[in-house]
Amino acid sequence: MDEDDSRAHVVPGSDEELDGADVRGYDFRGSFDFDAMLDSYATTGFQATQLAEAIDIAERMQANDATIYLTITSNIVSSGLREVVAYLIREGYVDVLITTSGSLTEDVIKTEKPFKMGEWDADESELREQGINRLGNIFVPSDRYVWLEEYLYEFFEDFFAEEKVRTPTAFARELGETLDDEDSVLKQAADNDVPVYCPALTDAEVGNFLYYYRQGYDSDVGIEILDDYDSLIEEALLSDTTGLIAVGGGVPKHHAIMTNLFRGGADYVVYISTGIEGDGSLSGAPPNEAVSWGKIKDAENNYTQVEAEATLVFPLLVASAFKN
Amino acid sequence: MDEDDSRAHVVPGSDEELDGADVRGYDFRGSFDFDAMLDSYATTGFQATQLAEAIDIAERMQANDATIYLTITSNIVSSGLREVVAYLIREGYVDVLITTSGSLTEDVIKTEKPFKMGEWDADESELREQGINRLGNIFVPSDRYVWLEEYLYEFFEDFFAEEKVRTPTAFARELGETLDDEDSVLKQAADNDVPVYCPALTDAEVGNFLYYYRQGYDSDVGIEILDDYDSLIEEALLSDTTGLIAVGGGVPKHHAIMTNLFRGGADYVVYISTGIEGDGSLSGAPPNEAVSWGKIKDAENNYTQVEAEATLVFPLLVASAFKN
Amino acid sequence: MDEDDSRAHVVPGSDEELDGADVRGYDFRGSFDFDAMLDSYATTGFQATQLAEAIDIAERMQANDATIYLTITSNIVSSGLREVVAYLIREGYVDVLITTSGSLTEDVIKTEKPFKMGEWDADESELREQGINRLGNIFVPSDRYVWLEEYLYEFFEDFFAEEKVRTPTAFARELGETLDDEDSVLKQAADNDVPVYCPALTDAEVGNFLYYYRQGYDSDVGIEILDDYDSLIEEALLSDTTGLIAVGGGVPKHHAIMTNLFRGGADYVVYISTGIEGDGSLSGAPPNEAVSWGKIKDAENNYTQVEAEATLVFPLLVASAFKN
Amino acid sequence: MDEDDSRAHVVPGSDEELDGADVRGYDFRGSFDFDAMLDSYATTGFQATQLAEAIDIAERMQANDATIYLTITSNIVSSGLREVVAYLIREGYVDVLITTSGSLTEDVIKTEKPFKMGEWDADESELREQGINRLGNIFVPSDRYVWLEEYLYEFFEDFFAEEKVRTPTAFARELGETLDDEDSVLKQAADNDVPVYCPALTDAEVGNFLYYYRQGYDSDVGIEILDDYDSLIEEALLSDTTGLIAVGGGVPKHHAIMTNLFRGGADYVVYISTGIEGDGSLSGAPPNEAVSWGKIKDAENNYTQVEAEATLVFPLLVASAFKN
Ligand SMILES: NC(=O)c1ccc[n+]([C@@H]2O[C@H](COP(=O)([O-])OP(=O)(O)OC[C@H]3O[C@@H](n4cnc5c(N)ncnc54)[C@H](O)[C@@H]3O)[C@@H](O)[C@H]2O)c1
Ligand SMILES: NC(=O)c1ccc[n+]([C@@H]2O[C@H](COP(=O)([O-])OP(=O)(O)OC[C@H]3O[C@@H](n4cnc5c(N)ncnc54)[C@H](O)[C@@H]3O)[C@@H](O)[C@H]2O)c1
Repeated sequence: MDEDDSRAHVVPGSDEELDGADVRGYDFRGSFDFDAMLDSYATTGFQATQLAEAIDIAERMQANDATIYLTITSNIVSSGLREVVAYLIREGYVDVLITTSGSLTEDVIKTEKPFKMGEWDADESELREQGINRLGNIFVPSDRYVWLEEYLYEFFEDFFAEEKVRTPTAFARELGETLDDEDSVLKQAADNDVPVYCPALTDAEVGNFLYYYRQGYDSDVGIEILDDYDSLIEEALLSDTTGLIAVGGGVPKHHAIMTNLFRGGADYVVYISTGIEGDGSLSGAPPNEAVSWGKIKDAENNYTQVEAEATLVFPLLVASAFKN
Repeated sequence: MDEDDSRAHVVPGSDEELDGADVRGYDFRGSFDFDAMLDSYATTGFQATQLAEAIDIAERMQANDATIYLTITSNIVSSGLREVVAYLIREGYVDVLITTSGSLTEDVIKTEKPFKMGEWDADESELREQGINRLGNIFVPSDRYVWLEEYLYEFFEDFFAEEKVRTPTAFARELGETLDDEDSVLKQAADNDVPVYCPALTDAEVGNFLYYYRQGYDSDVGIEILDDYDSLIEEALLSDTTGLIAVGGGVPKHHAIMTNLFRGGADYVVYISTGIEGDGSLSGAPPNEAVSWGKIKDAENNYTQVEAEATLVFPLLVASAFKN
Repeated sequence: MDEDDSRAHVVPGSDEELDGADVRGYDFRGSFDFDAMLDSYATTGFQATQLAEAIDIAERMQANDATIYLTITSNIVSSGLREVVAYLIREGYVDVLITTSGSLTEDVIKTEKPFKMGEWDADESELREQGINRLGNIFVPSDRYVWLEEYLYEFFEDFFAEEKVRTPTAFARELGETLDDEDSVLKQAADNDVPVYCPALTDAEVGNFLYYYRQGYDSDVGIEILDDYDSLIEEALLSDTTGLIAVGGGVPKHHAIMTNLFRGGADYVVYISTGIEGDGSLSGAPPNEAVSWGKIKDAENNYTQVEAEATLVFPLLVASAFKN
Repeated sequence: MDEDDSRAHVVPGSDEELDGADVRGYDFRGSFDFDAMLDSYATTGFQATQLAEAIDIAERMQANDATIYLTITSNIVSSGLREVVAYLIREGYVDVLITTSGSLTEDVIKTEKPFKMGEWDADESELREQGINRLGNIFVPSDRYVWLEEYLYEFFEDFFAEEKVRTPTAFARELGETLDDEDSVLKQAADNDVPVYCPALTDAEVGNFLYYYRQGYDSDVGIEILDDYDSLIEEALLSDTTGLIAVGGGVPKHHAIMTNLFRGGADYVVYISTGIEGDGSLSGAPPNEAVSWGKIKDAENNYTQVEAEATLVFPLLVASAFKN
């Protein structure tokens, strides 16, 4: 290989015209403008551009009157995003909420007693001795669960009074109705007729306390999950247009895309996730995998994913797309 | 600051005696010895050391006759780890299996038709047109689901024949009994009396086909989930010693540690996960977070986590700790 | 174990008083207030809290007149963060910049021709044929490098005219002086006497074109790197207080902490990184690892790490801590 | 939409014939066979399949007499993979080694005193007081650096005795020649004429001690980096076929692919990395990004990436592809 060859490799010399926007970040000159900064994310590249796409898609969901599904993992309610989710429901932006069981119990606790900022690297033995439960950098003293147990016991009595076998959506709705906190996700969902789907209802303190309840009071009560799944499918079948915002993965994310399969896929989709594609997990699967299954529609610019921890970006998405 | 000061910072000069082992990798001289190589992982550092710890803990689970819980996400069954899980159950190494719904349907399909190796970056529109569903780098042609629907319909008829409301464990067991494949997870579980817990049973094709079944045949059938949760708690309460291997996170992992809370925590725990701690997720939470909750016991060297994609390391764990 | 025992495990009943703040997210009621939203990150938990800490530490760097080191990987300049970095230098917020070689060449190109927004999953063969180089979701047509080669050749002639062996800092400064773009990182660094350290100067197009230059024009030119390292150490020794913001990892991050070792550690440190701790890498090592080495001081709340992709959070940090 | 429509979405009914292999994991029946297990990785899916591809490509590198470049980050030498790298060089499998500066100093230390297995979550203040430096879960007592300083001082005298300005490759080679440990990477490289490239030679203790050396003994010594880059380019230009194994990312990985650009790209490439694509980093960039630049050839199955921490998988790759 002579030098000219090597040069040809190094500098091929094309100057293809490209129609993409110029990469350019926010101009911090002059007075700061939050909206302009978020607009600049579109041309900042990497995940900033993904976030700008997510905002655009979320806006189009609304412009096209989509039925909006919000799916959240339980830790979203552990964090301060609980209040943000409650806001979205209160303002009528969300039509269907899908989550896991921890969301329910933690939302109830927070109506009475706050969670506390803590430390990631706290000593686990000390915490255990002090009765402090750690959730990332959040601390939840155990007295919260003592209070919750009592609260739920009373609720269980009412909830199972007329019917012995109930559904998770009924559980969430009737529990929400007992709450008195405008920042409660469950209360807002109940007040605004937003169904809260939670198939694995046992997988948190609800399950634990129902165990005691069945041991001590009434062994016949039950939670049945097929009814809810039918409703969720029908929600999809009856919607002209659907939009899906999945904050985190797991069962909630899959529940939303799977039931959208019945209508040929969700129309607009935003994923916010720390999951990785390379483990073949559902949580890490990017939107285009769901397109192959027909769970998301194969249209133009109708889906995107922001690879980020949600507390960092979800408030930005809400501030930009769900606030006027 | 004069030079001597700076030097003191750079080379503080301690020579603390340390009792840790010397860091030293496998010696590839001479003929290759697989066991010796895995032993060397203990002193190789980083995640290799974590894997060596996991193997050690898994061995101690057995030496101490622990009730062993294996929790797996659905994609484990999508992958070739299905056969490895079936092996573990067949050989009596696993006492309780906890999983999500995709595991069940995919295990059944594989008794009849294989999944196929595919490509991560296949074009989603083409796949959709060809009726090929993508799961990471695995392809599942849609005919599998046509076959599955028929298979499950027949099964549903039998399953709901006597009782209209059933549990996920009964579902898994009776479905497993219909299968005729020694590499089937469900068949091995059924044959070896290993209960298969799966609270969110609706969240896969089971749910979809039950929807049609209820529409078309019998709208009264139901799946009730409290009974199973009680059994799982009692499993924990009745065990002298428990060991938990969580492959991936999600509901299965939490189900296992949460029910071990009732006995003051699992005795031995191995997590294999790609989850990250910094997102505050349950899937990413390391074992010591669960110690603060009392879900894992606070003892010596009784838990560890391998940060890795499971297909890479689970066969190594099995080869070393569950093969003699 | 009787039921009471199990209950004691499940609800240990402590109500330890905790002095942490209540976990609480932004209140979206009323008109939107960007600063209040970022303030709320402190009590939102997970990475939002990390970002709030980073902002606080960055503010304290300034309040305490720290010598501020900014370290960036090359892709920061590929992205729209280039303009943000240029702003920080232009406004006098940064005293030392440490980076890798791609930053230099890309900054120069952008003074003449923009990079373009592209696609993550573009077909690599097509791109190659069209002479489009991909950098994540950013496209760089090859003509940029044709232009750059000419530009650098002329520069090399001047740069090596008087002295044959030069340093990377001299290279960056004199190159910056030739540029005519207020958004150029190198120009701002040159204009504001901010040294740009870049030990691995060969590892990008600079190296490639210097190879041709040495072949074709002058084989005696050289780049010597010890002088620069001495200066960087002396920068640390002469500073009363140092603050370090590492955007990404690699050589730049290590260069900054290693030279701060000479003064007993950096006083204030913010890392923004996608690196993971579990691979034992320098890029993923959290601040407390550097404390063990004496590269970061062991004080109160003087360091933190935000686990995030920089384009998402760096503009927020700048808007909050470096804009008045 | 009526039911039949929804069914058409759910079960599209194609049965495309696929030519991919059946997904199938290792059969643990019978006696354990390590090679058969690694073979089964090809059809296990997810990252196991990536590892099987990596092994296949590494074997083809050798079958095609490729010049093999191994690039490693410094922490590889911190870990027990040091001995594995030394083996590869000793046995003649590696032609070019590219690394960062920490590799050099740590390899030298280990010829005299071992690193020690430690703890990820050790208290940083205690470690600092005890003079123990932490590197992930590895401890390095500070006395190692006291010893190293003396050792390097003597070496510097010889190294700079005849020429004042030297290159990193000369540094590595002559340093390696002084060592007396068959498991030393530098010694094996010196003995086997494998050049060790390390452009950012200052970025570790080498830099620190050269600072003192220049202050105290001889301020004229220097390290020049253009010569080495020329040699590395020529290495690429003179090779008929090149193969590249990048363990970790950073400067070493980029140095290898960038210089392969001069010959139109590397022929065979294996990346092992924990880096993520979504941050637009060089360390996280998958092989196909490099294809767009011409740094990797666009051929059939000639590159792959294993998303994994190296200590877990590199020994498997070596055992399978570099051991006979
Ligand atoms: N094949 C499928 O994945 C599939 C099929 C049908 C339905 N579903 C449904 O999707 C829902 C969510 O799936 P899930 O709860 O089983 O878990 P998941 O796939 O969402 O994974 C949860 C977490 O486990 C970890 N993980 C997953 N795969 C891993 C691997 N290979 N190695 C290491 N760690 C890994 C990751 O941290 C991940 O975030 C479930 O209800 C399930 O039934 C999944
Ligand atoms: N022991 C040390 O790590 C050490 C010691 C002294 C100096 N330094 C200096 O720090 C600087 C930065 O270090 P670096 O450039 O060697 O790389 P790095 O440690 O910063 O790693 C770069 C990238 O490689 C990947 N990677 C690293 N370790 C991996 C692993 N175990 N498995 C898979 N992927 C992995 C990750 O994506 C990481 O982001 C260098 O100048 C080096 O000399 C490092």
